[in-house]
Amino acid sequence: MEPRISLITLGVADLGRAQAFYEALGWRRSPASVAGEVAFYQAGAMALGLWARAKLAADAGVAPEGAGFAGIALAHNVRTRDEVDRLLAEAAAAGAVITKPAQDSPHFLGRTGYFTDPDGHLWEVAWNPGFPLGPDGALTLPEG
Amino acid sequence: MEPRISLITLGVADLGRAQAFYEALGWRRSPASVAGEVAFYQAGAMALGLWARAKLAADAGVAPEGAGFAGIALAHNVRTRDEVDRLLAEAAAAGAVITKPAQDSPHFLGRTGYFTDPDGHLWEVAWNPGFPLGPDGALTLPEG
Repeated sequence: MEPRISLITLGVADLGRAQAFYEALGWRRSPASVAGEVAFYQAGAMALGLWARAKLAADAGVAPEGAGFAGIALAHNVRTRDEVDRLLAEAAAAGAVITKPAQDSPHFLGRTGYFTDPDGHLWEVAWNPGFPLGPDGALTLPEG
Repeated sequence: MEPRISLITLGVADLGRAQAFYEALGWRRSPASVAGEVAFYQAGAMALGLWARAKLAADAGVAPEGAGFAGIALAHNVRTRDEVDRLLAEAAAAGAVITKPAQDSPHFLGRTGYFTDPDGHLWEVAWNPGFPLGPDGALTLPEG
């Protein structure tokens, strides 16, 4: 297995609502999407998909039941401290729930906050100068 | 918000067990990791993190309770049909549970299967010639 993630699929209760949320944040739906069925968004070198939660569970061969904390968080890192606050405000305006307002991180020299999307998927917004971003947004872990 | 995902953090019950699983699959722990606390893996233009589930929940300001289907799947796309079967076998050998054995996809012209890692995080292994992979593994959604 090469250390790569190709696609993240988020199970959603209402595809239209989920699309509206991500598109309000500036994501552009790919022509590869199938109207009313699945939405894809190019995300740098990978893709994000939105698909009915029950269909995703069935496709994966797992029971659809279960709720609460999914044990997973997606992070969107930004280039400046101020962008953390700005992006959390933008997410709230688009309908996100802020689960942790922007604050200086206890874990790294930087600033962080979290929101959940309309289906409860967790996103961290982080400014972490220790994990540099390239001009294209690619994140590179430090060498030590 | 730029359409990017910088980092995916998986909440884990036993960091050592989770590290062993991903490293058995060929992921290389970054020197940015903190022994016994958090493990990072460079994953193309982004990174994967492993962190105690309870700490991740607390960090995100959400309740740690909840179980079952997380409503999310990570996908690792491969370049050939045979690689799907091979990688699922490799994952099973490393301790994964195969939730859906390799089969021709009902959704795209290709082949797919799913496994869960030791903490139940879902991974799809897919060969989908309609979503081409670059030499560096970058996935590009088709233009239409």
